[in-house]
Amino acid sequence: MTSSMWQFSKRAAALKSSAIREILKVTELPDVISFAGGLPSPNSFPIAKIKQAVDDIMDSDESFNALQYGPTEGYKPLREWVANLINQREKTHLTIDNVLIVTGSQQALDLIGKALIDEGTKVLVETPTYLGALQTFTQYEPEYVSIASDDQGLNPDQLSDEEAKSANFLYTIPNFQNPTGRRLSEERRKKLAEKAKKNNLLMIEDDPYGELDYQGHRLPSLISFAPDNTVYLGSFSKILAPGMRLGYVVGPVEFIRKLVQLKQAADLHTPSYTQHIAYQVIKDGYLGSHIPKIRELYKTRCQFMLAQLDKYMPKTVRWTKPEGGMFIWVELPEHINSTELLAKAVKSNVAFVPGETFFATNPKKNCLRLAFVTVPEERIEKGIKILADLIK
Amino acid sequence: MTSSMWQFSKRAAALKSSAIREILKVTELPDVISFAGGLPSPNSFPIAKIKQAVDDIMDSDESFNALQYGPTEGYKPLREWVANLINQREKTHLTIDNVLIVTGSQQALDLIGKALIDEGTKVLVETPTYLGALQTFTQYEPEYVSIASDDQGLNPDQLSDEEAKSANFLYTIPNFQNPTGRRLSEERRKKLAEKAKKNNLLMIEDDPYGELDYQGHRLPSLISFAPDNTVYLGSFSKILAPGMRLGYVVGPVEFIRKLVQLKQAADLHTPSYTQHIAYQVIKDGYLGSHIPKIRELYKTRCQFMLAQLDKYMPKTVRWTKPEGGMFIWVELPEHINSTELLAKAVKSNVAFVPGETFFATNPKKNCLRLAFVTVPEERIEKGIKILADLIK
Repeated sequence: MTSSMWQFSKRAAALKSSAIREILKVTELPDVISFAGGLPSPNSFPIAKIKQAVDDIMDSDESFNALQYGPTEGYKPLREWVANLINQREKTHLTIDNVLIVTGSQQALDLIGKALIDEGTKVLVETPTYLGALQTFTQYEPEYVSIASDDQGLNPDQLSDEEAKSANFLYTIPNFQNPTGRRLSEERRKKLAEKAKKNNLLMIEDDPYGELDYQGHRLPSLISFAPDNTVYLGSFSKILAPGMRLGYVVGPVEFIRKLVQLKQAADLHTPSYTQHIAYQVIKDGYLGSHIPKIRELYKTRCQFMLAQLDKYMPKTVRWTKPEGGMFIWVELPEHINSTELLAKAVKSNVAFVPGETFFATNPKKNCLRLAFVTVPEERIEKGIKILADLIK
Repeated sequence: MTSSMWQFSKRAAALKSSAIREILKVTELPDVISFAGGLPSPNSFPIAKIKQAVDDIMDSDESFNALQYGPTEGYKPLREWVANLINQREKTHLTIDNVLIVTGSQQALDLIGKALIDEGTKVLVETPTYLGALQTFTQYEPEYVSIASDDQGLNPDQLSDEEAKSANFLYTIPNFQNPTGRRLSEERRKKLAEKAKKNNLLMIEDDPYGELDYQGHRLPSLISFAPDNTVYLGSFSKILAPGMRLGYVVGPVEFIRKLVQLKQAADLHTPSYTQHIAYQVIKDGYLGSHIPKIRELYKTRCQFMLAQLDKYMPKTVRWTKPEGGMFIWVELPEHINSTELLAKAVKSNVAFVPGETFFATNPKKNCLRLAFVTVPEERIEKGIKILADLIK
């Protein structure tokens, strides 16, 4: 009956139910030790500070602006804060006209897909890459080209000038990539930026994890090497709270202007309320003392999981040793299918994300992603031991 | 340089700068008497109540959930609240599976456009209709069919069975429509619902203003007459605060499921924080005492503007007499172009929205939309007098 009532568009009909969603359902059961989620640790949420910020806003005349419609571009003081942050860190020369506030980085990916992808548009991606970006871009029917990547991240020597010229953009997560935890080396950043400049290639630099550098040793972003070629995506989800859904896009003025038009149609603007709160929290440098606490928390948890992998996994299993972020990428012997392994693991109350969904082309079946930041240490040990036993 | 760096998609390249945006820029100047904005009155924002709600959440364990990622479908208690509201009011039999929380109703329009419109898909609309819906749907390249409408709203007798059969959906705002302030009569609601059932026509019933009925005399919604044929859009923007960006979609389970997939790609989920706050504010029936205050405020302002129109406008000018909502629609003598009038009016520090942008097809040039809820009475009188003098 319903099918005669309406017809879904081609793009909507082609959408499949997401693997992440199905997995998240499993992880909601309290007994499951879940290494599947990409959630930041709630222990990192600055609850008292946010409460104070809300009270300050609600007690001032700003309360009216915080509750009213606002400009599509975002709350001006927050855009200024972003421009200053990137200018100081990356030696760029941005103004607020280069900044758009979005309803989480995921929205930036959707707006960019809408802005840049027609059927058959060539899009360069890492191998593997972020599942959420693939899902979103795929709606607009691109042709993906996977660029070879290794422990140092995407390899610019494996990106040919023809590929760079024929693609409309490259999508990359240089810092502690989702799903691998890899960081692009400084030398490769320079090389990639040079290649982009030479071939007029636009790079979408997605950086939700850049601040989660365990040593506090940030490498320069692609935007610092090739500002005209880079659209930079930042997020407050991992350094403040994902429930606010706040991110930002930094890029050439002409590009930002087009995204603003698309965003107006998508949701008019990012909630004024959350923008005001975030700005009130961060405006006096609060993140300078807050972020080191998150780093320490995640570093300890990561080192603990790496130690358990060392202790329990058979010699045939390899994994990344992240210097930051939230994920470890595990490569199993080639004959082990990680999706089949998940089915068994879930029966033993352990969950992870199988690796194949993170590949734009030629999925590898023997990989998986482990998230460690929300799991207590004793459960990490228990879960890794169960996985290791299943693999053996 | 930039143009060789990337190529905008066809849909993005086709987007033009929005009339609303340009107009809102003018209205930011403090001297301008603006009848242009569609903003609710900040006097209607329940600031103390919201502050209390936030404090309650932040002092409880819910604070962690309010700041964490959440399900794409929305915060479960808020979805339950919506299902109960519609069930009680419209005698429907909804469950939470029929409800999706969105980042403002505008997002619902975008998701629906994505879900239902391919190039050339037929979409039925009122004459005139909401500009923001046209802007959003147009990205997906529909073919619009404008259905004749008069002071009682869309005329179902003017909608042929062939049109109803060949269209993928009808988009309508039955209550105090933007831009006209018209309300669809109960008889026409029944007729339209019958026609939809007969022809398997899906109706998108957009209802941001339904609660702003000055007499508190709500008419039954289309969803009560034809629940299987209706997707109902509700909003908290006009009864709580638009800066929260909170709306909801109610519809058949299969339809909601598809929107959930599209929403996941669009922004993962609506901010948990604002959803928790809204639910905390409304869960114990607060809107029952709050909404009558907004109605009274808007009714007084509307009646005042109608009186000024009576007092100052020449006999050749006609306008709607809304029984609710935020807008009055004015029809000038045919030889007056309202866009040209706006240019003159702005020089005299008065702004409004020219009517032509609200037509999907065959724009009428001699109409304009007046918003009254944010303008103090003495400025309403002054502004209407200036407009009347310009028209004479």
